[in-house]
Amino acid sequence: MEDRVGAYVPGGTLDMPGSAGGPLDGLSFAAKDLYDIAGLPTSYGNPDWARTHPPAAATAPAIAALLAAGAHLRGKTKTVELAYGLTGENVHHGTPLNPAAPERFPGGSSCGSAAAVAAGMVDFAMGSDTGGSVRIPASYCGIFGIRPSWGAVNLAGACALAPSFDTAGWFAATAAVLRRVGEVLLPEGGEAPLGPLLKVQEAWVNAVPGTATALAPGLAAAERLLGPALPVNLVPETVDLLYERFRIAQAAEAWATLGAWVEATKPAFGPGVGERFAAARAVGPEAAEQARRFRAGFAARLRALLAGGAVLAYPTSPVPAPRLDADAATQQAVRERTLAVTAIAGMAGLCEVSIPAARSEGAPVGLSLVAAPGRDRALLALAERLASELRLAG
Amino acid sequence: MEDRVGAYVPGGTLDMPGSAGGPLDGLSFAAKDLYDIAGLPTSYGNPDWARTHPPAAATAPAIAALLAAGAHLRGKTKTVELAYGLTGENVHHGTPLNPAAPERFPGGSSCGSAAAVAAGMVDFAMGSDTGGSVRIPASYCGIFGIRPSWGAVNLAGACALAPSFDTAGWFAATAAVLRRVGEVLLPEGGEAPLGPLLKVQEAWVNAVPGTATALAPGLAAAERLLGPALPVNLVPETVDLLYERFRIAQAAEAWATLGAWVEATKPAFGPGVGERFAAARAVGPEAAEQARRFRAGFAARLRALLAGGAVLAYPTSPVPAPRLDADAATQQAVRERTLAVTAIAGMAGLCEVSIPAARSEGAPVGLSLVAAPGRDRALLALAERLASELRLAG
Repeated sequence: MEDRVGAYVPGGTLDMPGSAGGPLDGLSFAAKDLYDIAGLPTSYGNPDWARTHPPAAATAPAIAALLAAGAHLRGKTKTVELAYGLTGENVHHGTPLNPAAPERFPGGSSCGSAAAVAAGMVDFAMGSDTGGSVRIPASYCGIFGIRPSWGAVNLAGACALAPSFDTAGWFAATAAVLRRVGEVLLPEGGEAPLGPLLKVQEAWVNAVPGTATALAPGLAAAERLLGPALPVNLVPETVDLLYERFRIAQAAEAWATLGAWVEATKPAFGPGVGERFAAARAVGPEAAEQARRFRAGFAARLRALLAGGAVLAYPTSPVPAPRLDADAATQQAVRERTLAVTAIAGMAGLCEVSIPAARSEGAPVGLSLVAAPGRDRALLALAERLASELRLAG
Repeated sequence: MEDRVGAYVPGGTLDMPGSAGGPLDGLSFAAKDLYDIAGLPTSYGNPDWARTHPPAAATAPAIAALLAAGAHLRGKTKTVELAYGLTGENVHHGTPLNPAAPERFPGGSSCGSAAAVAAGMVDFAMGSDTGGSVRIPASYCGIFGIRPSWGAVNLAGACALAPSFDTAGWFAATAAVLRRVGEVLLPEGGEAPLGPLLKVQEAWVNAVPGTATALAPGLAAAERLLGPALPVNLVPETVDLLYERFRIAQAAEAWATLGAWVEATKPAFGPGVGERFAAARAVGPEAAEQARRFRAGFAARLRALLAGGAVLAYPTSPVPAPRLDADAATQQAVRERTLAVTAIAGMAGLCEVSIPAARSEGAPVGLSLVAAPGRDRALLALAERLASELRLAG
């Protein structure tokens, strides 16, 4: 199908059929251009990265598993440079169109994968999610997306940003396809039923009123499936602190992972990306240690709270996608407010599914359901039931 | 030791040494007069019950286990008639004195056991807890008390009130003795560390401001042990509804258990008890079924929420013990407000320890820690750590 939204990297159109007769036979997909495909360059969203790295020697196991399951690989999709951004902007390759709200950003960093699915170019697409890079474009583009439990899906052969946060996620236009991909990629188990539903108060308050109001029927539908939602607060301080600790923890890891390359290469970066690496370089060891300690305590609390099957519910993104003409200050404010909530699953290694439950300000907003590590399969089954309850296109 | 608080039933002083060398060797105890002691009458707090039942053929296994563990049984303690009341009043045997607040009720139904421990007559005492009958007198008398997980301690040979709520609990003046008794009575296991701490918002709001303020340092001490408390609401409606559903569910069972005897015997009851049985008789099958359905949903949510080790924290009783001259309307209002919170553990079969953390209005008030069924041993260990943190007499 024609790339009318600019989802693929230049020269990134592919035609690699999967094995016949597999469980994904008949489905097409695309993959974010940070997954290695044997013999092809991996750009990681930046021409200097592509120039300084050889073509991939092997195909990433997650992609190979999808091909072996019968899915047909159609292209390599655009990403924010080094996956370090949430709007989906890429000045080198061009920012993909948001098919659900053309005057707004598609969200990132997995922008091309989200755009390809939202435009109906492929049935599903692989992205990756460190700080929200699948969940946010899913919310912005009005599609389903999953950030799986940390470590649940193989990330070998995928470029790293902050390894203790990085996950391999994916998008689909329907909950059924989202689940079918999970059956191929996820480990066995984790299918025990989920509940109760916990309404994370900070995240609902953090959302703008229009988003919260639009998603209220989605929450009510989830209550019909899981019983009444219990209000809970997760952060004794404020989610602003969660944002700040996440930012530091992620930045310290990003610099440890990519700093040497950035210093050696001095790559040309688009707006925001260079600034984020400069800030990452400036993180001192004491701040990093403080963030790691905070994270350990937060993660332990959350994992214990969710160990019995409880499900958190809140708006995936506090606002719809920013407009393409939003100034830098607005974009930064949205970024901080967004990461304050996406950090919940990120800090604790939880699995999260975003469901295209509503529209606000003429653009999509997603409802997130979040569960304990390892409960991905049950979460995907729950998302499918909720989609049916909401009569979303199946 | 002399019974200067009127803890024992008439003629209920005993001198039954336990087996030498057991883990409770050197400790004395008393038992609520609803536990059978072979050869002795069991009064269940009412002369007509004693008159219409033969002396016990066998000693209740829980009591036998304590004797086998070396504890010395000193007496049979007073109970509210048929254990159906929370003030501790007994017009037939006399209401025990509250040693910690002599102008106030001791709390019930396990009033004599609480008074005996609070007066230092024995090291620990067995009570039973259906709707709060250990937790409330523990709070009122300023001692430690546990309602164990439903089914965790053998209730054979103990008179039943509402079997799906009834539990065998106990009191002690120190957290260490409370734990040592648990090591004899509780099943093995359930020792995995607990956390996070959840502050049950409804229960703190339900308490009068003086009680909540007095217990705030106790909660802060628990936070030093378990990390910051996360605010949570457990009941989407209000705790008034929790009270009402509990009342109906308990009353239906109480009538099913004791109604035939009440109708056949027409016993003389003191204030309140007869009214409660009359109300229990009037519960219709539809209301009972509605209460059972509510309970099933509530219990499932709570058990899943606590399955990973989370601990609820709230005031055991919303107010200190009512004064002995409180009128019937005041007593009923306190009863309703109290059961609205004690019903949390009762409805869900949770284990709960009350810690004598503070005084308010010149009388004790307890802080409760509540955990999932089966985690009693970890809860007792946590109570001991909290007692140490609060520098309570060890």
